[in-house]
This record gives sequence, structure tokens and C-alpha cells, in this order.
Amino acid sequence: MPDRLMDAPAINQQAIDNLFTPGSVAVIGASGVPGKWGYLAAEQALRDKSRRDVFLVNRKGGEIQGEDAYRRYSDIEAVPDLAVISVPRFAFEETIDEVLARGTRSIVGITAGFGEEGREGRAVEERVVTKVREAGAAMLGPNCMGVYDGHGGVRCMPWAELTPGPVGFLSQSGGLIMDISKRLAEVELGFSRVASVGNQAHVQIPDVMGNLAADGGTRLVAIYIEDLAQADRLFESISGMVSGGKEIILMTPHSTPGSVRAARAHTGSTVTSMQATREKAAQAGAWYVSSPREMVTVAQALLAPNRTAGKRVAVISDTGGPGVLCSGLAEKQGLEVPEFGAALQGRLRGLLSPRAVVDNPVDLVDNITVEPMVDTLEVVLEAEEIDAVLMNIHVFVHESADLEVRTGKRIGRLAARSGKPVVVTSHSMDSPGVLAALRCGIPVYRDTGDAASGLALQCGCRSVG
Amino acid sequence: MPDRLMDAPAINQQAIDNLFTPGSVAVIGASGVPGKWGYLAAEQALRDKSRRDVFLVNRKGGEIQGEDAYRRYSDIEAVPDLAVISVPRFAFEETIDEVLARGTRSIVGITAGFGEEGREGRAVEERVVTKVREAGAAMLGPNCMGVYDGHGGVRCMPWAELTPGPVGFLSQSGGLIMDISKRLAEVELGFSRVASVGNQAHVQIPDVMGNLAADGGTRLVAIYIEDLAQADRLFESISGMVSGGKEIILMTPHSTPGSVRAARAHTGSTVTSMQATREKAAQAGAWYVSSPREMVTVAQALLAPNRTAGKRVAVISDTGGPGVLCSGLAEKQGLEVPEFGAALQGRLRGLLSPRAVVDNPVDLVDNITVEPMVDTLEVVLEAEEIDAVLMNIHVFVHESADLEVRTGKRIGRLAARSGKPVVVTSHSMDSPGVLAALRCGIPVYRDTGDAASGLALQCGCRSVG
Repeated sequence: MPDRLMDAPAINQQAIDNLFTPGSVAVIGASGVPGKWGYLAAEQALRDKSRRDVFLVNRKGGEIQGEDAYRRYSDIEAVPDLAVISVPRFAFEETIDEVLARGTRSIVGITAGFGEEGREGRAVEERVVTKVREAGAAMLGPNCMGVYDGHGGVRCMPWAELTPGPVGFLSQSGGLIMDISKRLAEVELGFSRVASVGNQAHVQIPDVMGNLAADGGTRLVAIYIEDLAQADRLFESISGMVSGGKEIILMTPHSTPGSVRAARAHTGSTVTSMQATREKAAQAGAWYVSSPREMVTVAQALLAPNRTAGKRVAVISDTGGPGVLCSGLAEKQGLEVPEFGAALQGRLRGLLSPRAVVDNPVDLVDNITVEPMVDTLEVVLEAEEIDAVLMNIHVFVHESADLEVRTGKRIGRLAARSGKPVVVTSHSMDSPGVLAALRCGIPVYRDTGDAASGLALQCGCRSVG
Repeated sequence: MPDRLMDAPAINQQAIDNLFTPGSVAVIGASGVPGKWGYLAAEQALRDKSRRDVFLVNRKGGEIQGEDAYRRYSDIEAVPDLAVISVPRFAFEETIDEVLARGTRSIVGITAGFGEEGREGRAVEERVVTKVREAGAAMLGPNCMGVYDGHGGVRCMPWAELTPGPVGFLSQSGGLIMDISKRLAEVELGFSRVASVGNQAHVQIPDVMGNLAADGGTRLVAIYIEDLAQADRLFESISGMVSGGKEIILMTPHSTPGSVRAARAHTGSTVTSMQATREKAAQAGAWYVSSPREMVTVAQALLAPNRTAGKRVAVISDTGGPGVLCSGLAEKQGLEVPEFGAALQGRLRGLLSPRAVVDNPVDLVDNITVEPMVDTLEVVLEAEEIDAVLMNIHVFVHESADLEVRTGKRIGRLAARSGKPVVVTSHSMDSPGVLAALRCGIPVYRDTGDAASGLALQCGCRSVG
């Protein structure tokens, strides 16, 4: 089997860039029937018609979602920069011919049923790719879910309601784009640019990485890929981006008999051994994860404002048991929860209720409101003996919304001023205080173990791969 | 150091039982100031005043929350079954004297500041315990958060708004009661009986286990304990309950320098080595966990209706990538995702869209509505070659609420009829379809890895400890 990620010649970068920031878009196979892919693709593209021309194409013509549809691609009066193809499988190849003949060089192939469905489909796919390549064009997919640019470029990702943010995502799975999007939105994060690459018949993940590397709005690139056989070009691209200052998170399936068979059916891919992938990722400087939850945990940690090489953590908890658990989980991650010196204990003693435990972890005991916790945070962040703080906050939920928001913002300000990592764990992820802290860049984790793991990453206890 | 869980003589079982189902309750230190422990304890007790007499006691007398307060415990005209004490620390010992003198034999000591605060506090605690013991009474705490009976017994757990359900919880941490309660409620589970044992100065966790063992509403007992030094009596009680048919989940902190110091400050406890605890738990037949998220995952699996010794799992997914990930995660847990036989593939081929992948994992591809997923479930559950099913459901969120609820219930019915374990993973935990499935006893997990782990437990791939 050839290395699908190695033998491809370089693709016209302008054609790649126009996937994300086209001057005009055509949706071919646009539909007026709600729920169809062609309906959703057209609906999303039309949202941005004040920014750029949007042309709908349907063999039957007529009016679609309030717009006149063109019967043929060649009828369009201008040359669209980007063609989004959602036609039936049998019409895909001739549609490609029309699009290339009209001069469009950026193509999104949503239509499925090619390389992933066996020999016959693969033959069509190969013919199409040859034509695209010879025309100097770039085709994403086929069997993909589209492209997205959160800065105000295209929204062409049927089914997915995406939130803008700093994360670039290149994915062989459309379903995971929806999944990760929802998880990122819960922690006030979102996507800068997303490409669903499907079968990667022409444009492959490494081809798009130059675009994301150059995009100032992308701080972190997450990748989901099923096919890693000899993917030297992928790891070269990753190394390059890491050198250029972007963080990379790589997620692949565990390589088991079921996942290998599933990947072949899904995108015609071969799943590589986990261990080999992990090692290659580490060499290239990419963070390696194996589930959506872990991807979001690592993303939160990588995007958090502060990093340190120090491991001395203060744990501040509003109840005792969670403070004990937090300390154990943090130290299990390689962090230390050292006993505070006498001076620091003295300062806290003056600040908190007489019964508070002030030696680290700090347990506020019967004074369980948020403000003394944040007063404690302020004092602890000033201490040279402490490098980072893990806060366990339950009682956000008992406060007024205004006070919660002020307190959340104060946590953000104190962290920013100190330059030290501060993370929060809370099971009240939707409280106003938590949302305010998240908006200041403070990572908040629903799970205590994830909080410890994320903080360990910010403190240099966790290495890539 | 003496073995705090071994040297205690047996406690009057009636006094223990009356902690959960008293005929009358007195709240001593009841307060009219919102936010105070004595306010919350009185407020909760008064909710059930139609079921039983509730007496409020406060040195200053007057009206508290619309009720006349008694100045002295001895003024109460009847002998209360249960005394909940939330007085200042200096008044605790004399209050115990009054309560015992009046003849009350069940006591909840909410007041804190004793064994957990050093030698002086420990001395008071020891004197009080001697008096309680000599009177043949039972005292929970001190430094605890109270008791709860979800069947309609007492609600005396200040701060915690608990939901009734099948889980008994015995906890050395009040904070974790709130945490676990919230996590259980998210998956439509809740508490049968809860005892916050605090310092375990008199009533210790093993003392309460007989009550939970006899309680028909308690299907599973979760335990959080910090002090496990030579806790032979605890593990004997656990063994007994496991033999009697109850499931036990044990959670303790990781034993690290920070957690050891924290546990001493929190409840005066000594944290035992993780490995030793894990081994003892396994010998006693208890499931061992190390974080709240894991506790809820295991609880869901243990409470799910069906178990099997078979490991052959069908994965049904509404999108490709998550199906690949699910398969890998399931097989990593010791499950198998075998290729379906020709007959089963044929039945599914006749049911699903031509492009669906039907060899296992099933990927519905472009036919992504919930109903065909559940049609698939029905067929797969009938197949002898499959022991259990893992469903990855994204698209619940696109359906009407009524259809979602019907579909969720249908998943429950099919699982019940087949007797095979069925679990769902979805990041739309609050959708009506997910809630309907949860109410039928189908475990639903936000995290794919947790779903695989929970299903592995139901299939016998995961052992206790």
C-alpha cells in the first residue's frame, strides 16, 4: 500500500487558502428540502451572503431558500472561488469536470461513496484526483463535512453549529468536529479554522497546515487522523509548526481489530499502532491524546495564560474532602503540595476564619463563601514558595450572579498579575462565576483528575507524546 | 496509634436506625440567620414537620423560621428521637450532657473543632464519646454534615440539596456528598441514605452498614473514607454486605505527602497506601475508585439492569469517527468488537440506507436520525453472536422532544427484553432522549472512555478492587 500521506505533490497554496477565505462560494446540489446535506450547506453559505457572492446550483433550477438556483455551473456569471459539492455520487465526477472547466480552483467534496466503499469507488476517486491535480486545484474530501473559518470566512459545515475561538481542527471525522465543538463551547473555547478532510484523496492534513501556521487567529492545532501508516510528511509538518510556535494535539484511535476494520470502512484508512504513533508524536513535539475529553483537557491547559517549570502547588478548597482528593491527584501527576512556611500560614491565619486550615491544602471550613477563597488566592500567589494554584470551588452556586462574575474576573486578574498558573475544578460548570473565570482564560475542569492533569501540563510535569 | 475502626464496641442498632428514621427531631443551635449551619439544619428538618415533630432549640428562645424555639433541651415536652447539634464549639459538651439526660439516644454532631484540630479538641471529643457510649447512644460526627433518608425519612444535610435514588453513601467528607449528589442527579440517580460521618469519633462507617444492608431502597453503597489504617472491621463489614448482595464502591485519596497532611487536618485521619487499600478492597469484593467521576461511572454500571460474561460488543454509531474511537476504547477495556456474520449483515443491509456500514461497528453514514439506530439495536440484540451494545448517539439533539423521549424509552425496552447490557455515550446529556433512556436504567456517559469502561464492568471484563 502506498503512503497516502507521502507521495502527493505540493498543492497550490492559494487554492488551499481559498478554502477558508474565498471571495465567492457556489453550493452545487443545493437543496430546498430541510435536513438534506445540500440544504444545510446552502443555508450555512447563505448566512454570509452579505460578505461575498453565494451561488446555488441545482439541476432542476427554481428557487431554493429564497434564491434563484443555477441549472448548470457554467451558467454562473462569475468564476466562484470555492465550489462546495453535495450532489449524488453518480454525478460527482461530471460536476468536478464542470467546476474545473469554469476555472474554480478550490473544491469541497461533501459527496461520499468513493475510496471508503471499495475498489470501484476508489477508481472514481483516483480519476477525479488526477483531474483536480492537473488543473492545479485543491479538493477537500470527498466524504467530508466541509470547512469553517471562525474569523468570518466561510461557514460550510453542514450539521455543525460551531463557535469561534483559537483552536484549529483538522479532522478525518465530521462527527468528532461536532463532538469537540460542543465540549470546547462548554469551556468557552471554539474553532479558528476547521477542515473536515474525509478520505484525504487530494488535500491531506499536512497540506492545510501551512495555512493554519500562517493564521494569527489559530493558537493551537488539533488533529484527528485514522491513517498514520508511514506518515512522515505529517510528522514533518507537525515539527515545522511546533518550531514556529504553534501547539499541536494529535488524536488517533486505539489500534484494535475493531477500530482497524472501522477506520477502513469510515475513510479507507489503516490505523497505525498506538505506541508507534505516540513515539512519533513525541519526536515531532505534538501532545498525544486518545479521547475527546482528554483533547479538551490538554487544549485548555495549552491555551491557559501561564506556564512554569515549578511544581509547588497550593490547593485551595472550600470543603475538606475534595481538598484531600485534589492534593492526592495533583501529587500523583508529579506536582508537589508542600506545607506553607510559617510566614505564609500567618498571613492566611489573619485573613481567614479561626478554624480554617492554612498549611496547604487550605480548607476554608465553615467560612464557605467564594470571596475569602479568592483573598487566599491573592496571598498565596504572592508567595515565592508557591508556583501554581489549584482551586476546588463548590460554592459559586450559592452566591449572587453579580458577585460570582466579579469573583470569577478577579481570579483571572490575579492569575494574570502573578504570571503563575491557576486552575479551577468545579462541578458547577454553568455557573456565572465559572463562566467569568473561563472568559479570563482560567481553565476550569468538571473533573478533579483532569484539573490536576491540566495543571501538571502547565507546570511542565507532563511531556508531549 | 490505636485502630480507630477496630477498638469500638458495638453500638445500639436502634440508635443507629433512628438516625435515618426518627419519630421526632430536635435541632439544637437552630438559627434564624440565613446561611448559618443552624439555619439550614432547621430549615431542612422543618420541611418534614408534617411527618414528625420538629423541635427547635436556641439559648435565646424566640421565634425561628416561624416556630417557637425552646431555650433548653429539657424544656421539650417529649423525648426527641434524634438530636441534631449545631451549637458553638464551647457549648457542645454541655449540650451532649443535656441531650443524654433527657433520654435521646441518636445524635448528629454537626459542630466542628475537635479531633481534627489537635490535642485539646481530641480530649473534648474523647470525653463526649465516653458519655455517649455509656448512655447507650449513637453519635454521628462531630464535624459532620448530617444525615439524609431519601425514602421520606430525615433531611438533615445543610447545604446539600439531595435527590432520592438507590445509592447509599457513607462519607467522611460533606463536600463530596454535594459533589457526588450533583453528578448522580445528572444521570438520573440519587441517594437512598447518606451519613456524613465526619471525625467518626463514635459512630464509624462500619456501624452504619448494617442499617444500609437491611434497607431495601439501597442497592449500592458508596463509601468515601480517609482513615484506613488497619481498618479490618471496615473490610469485614464490606465482605458481609457483598455476601448479602449489595454492591460496594470504595473511594479514598491517593496517599501522597499533601493528601496525608490534608486528611489529618480535615478529619484527623491517616491516609493508607493506595496499593494496600486497593488490595483489601478487592479481597472484600468492593469496587475501588479514585475520583468522583469514576465513582459515578462505576455506580451507573453496577445499577444497570443487565450483566453478562460475554465480551462480544456491537458498536452502533451515528457518525464514523466516534465509531472508530468507540471500538478502539472498548477493545482496550478487554471487550471484543467482532465482525458480524453474513446473516446479521444481511438483515441490517435490508434495514439501513445502502451506504451504511453494517459489519460492526455499524455506521449509519448519511441516514443520521435516531430511529434507524434503534432499529439497528433491535436487530443486533436478537443476534446470538452479540453479547452487549455500545451506542454513540449524537443526533438526539436534532429530533423533536416527543420522538426523542419515545426513542429513549424504546432503547430501555429493547435492553430489558434482551437481557443484554446496552450503554449509550452522548455529549448531549441534557437532551430529552438521553433523559428518557436514563430513566429506563440505561447508563449514558458523557465520555466515550467512561462508556467503554462501564460496559466492560457489566460484561465482566473489569474486576473489583
